[in-house]
Parts: sequence; structure tokens; C-alpha cells
Amino acid sequence: MAMASVRIRQAEEGDCGNILKLIRELAEYEKLSDQVKISEEALRADGFGENPFYCCLVAELLPAPGEPQGQGIGSKIIKKVAEVGLERGCSQLRLTVLDWNKGAMDLYKALGARDLTEAEGWHSFRFEEEAMRELAGK
Amino acid sequence: MAMASVRIRQAEEGDCGNILKLIRELAEYEKLSDQVKISEEALRADGFGENPFYCCLVAELLPAPGEPQGQGIGSKIIKKVAEVGLERGCSQLRLTVLDWNKGAMDLYKALGARDLTEAEGWHSFRFEEEAMRELAGK
Repeated sequence: MAMASVRIRQAEEGDCGNILKLIRELAEYEKLSDQVKISEEALRADGFGENPFYCCLVAELLPAPGEPQGQGIGSKIIKKVAEVGLERGCSQLRLTVLDWNKGAMDLYKALGARDLTEAEGWHSFRFEEEAMRELAGK
Repeated sequence: MAMASVRIRQAEEGDCGNILKLIRELAEYEKLSDQVKISEEALRADGFGENPFYCCLVAELLPAPGEPQGQGIGSKIIKKVAEVGLERGCSQLRLTVLDWNKGAMDLYKALGARDLTEAEGWHSFRFEEEAMRELAGK
């Protein structure tokens, strides 16, 4: 079988428009589109300023003719994240996933991750910006 | 009733020994002491190098005579984290908590946080360093 050609590289500022498109597509799949409030401008500022808030990898795909798109890209990009993380001194790699997204959960487990919510009972809490402003008295 | 005097300030490199002590005490309370692998040296390097991995606030307490220690410090430090976060351009504040730690969960909810695991089904996954090395082929 012909393999799709995948190139994984560091994101550049010019990728932010496409990154935002992918964030929106993921949120749509997760039925959480209303939670996407970030703009392309904020993505540029947060990731490519002096002390970046995030680091991003991009997978470029050139599918081989006749082959279904997307095969194995998830695993490849997670492997690359592990590699970059180790280079930068990280000792853990964490992911969050919705409990009905069995495909993703199975993939993460197959790759060696542990479900901490299931195994230890960890819950994720979030203060929204409005709640933060109230806390801060602003 | 006399109020304890609490001063919340940015951590300094010299606090790392005490920070590690608090990390260990928390892990003991969470029955997860075996998961504390970080050293004081790593805390110093990660928080006080050129591109810090974390930012830390320290609460200094001068208890008033006869008053039980610890009252209200959790809320005060969360409020300060919200304030510092907003100043730095953050739009959310996230916390993770064990499901049997009702006291902490009730506090976070009372302060305006939402339990995303309960409300939306988010699970937290973790790759340990060993799993990362396998992923990276190292």
C-alpha cells in the first residue's frame, strides 16, 4: 500500500489562520463551537511573541493517490510532541479528551497514556474570564 | 475575631526548598506521594531560568494568637492567581482536583469555577516520561 507523505514541522506565524480553522473544526466535532473565542490575532500574539504561551506543530500531508486521508497522523504528531517535549526537558505529556470520543481515548491508551480521571479520579475545573474578573475584583 | 495577616507575593528562587515541602505535603494528602519526582534543583531551573515553565505565588502567614491557621488562604491565593493571570492576558484559569476532595471542589465551585469533567465529560490523560521515550524512540 502506498503511504501518505507526512511532514511535521514547527508552526510559523503565517499558519495561524489555518490553525484557527482546525481549532474550529475540532470544536465543531466536540459540539463545543460556542467555546471558541480566540481570534487569529490572539493566536499570533500568544504563540509568536517574546515569551510564547504555546508551542505548536503542524502536520503537512500529501496523500498518495487512492489512499484515505488522515491515517496515522494522530500517532505521528503525538510521537513528535513527545520528542520535542523531551528535548525541552518535559517529564510528562498530558492530553484532555471528551469521554464519548472513544477513538481518541483508545488511541492514547494504545500509545501508552493513562486515563487519570478514570484511574485516580482527577476532575478538571475552569474559571471563565468573567469569573476571573469577579475573583480579581475587576 | 482577629484576622490572620496574609501576604501573597511572587515566589523567589530561594523559596524552592519550601515549595517542594508543600508539594510533598499535598501529595501525601492526595495519597500520591510516589508521583513526586521533582527535585529542588529542577524546581529552581524550571521556574527561574530564561523561559520559565511555571510561575508561582507564595502566601506568607502570620497567624493571630488563638486563631486556627489556614483560614481563607485558599480563596485569597486563587483570587491573586486570577489577578496575575488577567494581567498577563489569560482568559481562563484551570485547576485539577481529586473527586474525593469535596472541600476543594466545593470551594472552587463557590468561587465560580465549573467542573468540566462532570459537566462536559473531560478526561485527563498522561504519558509518563518512560512512555514519552518509547513514543520518541529514545
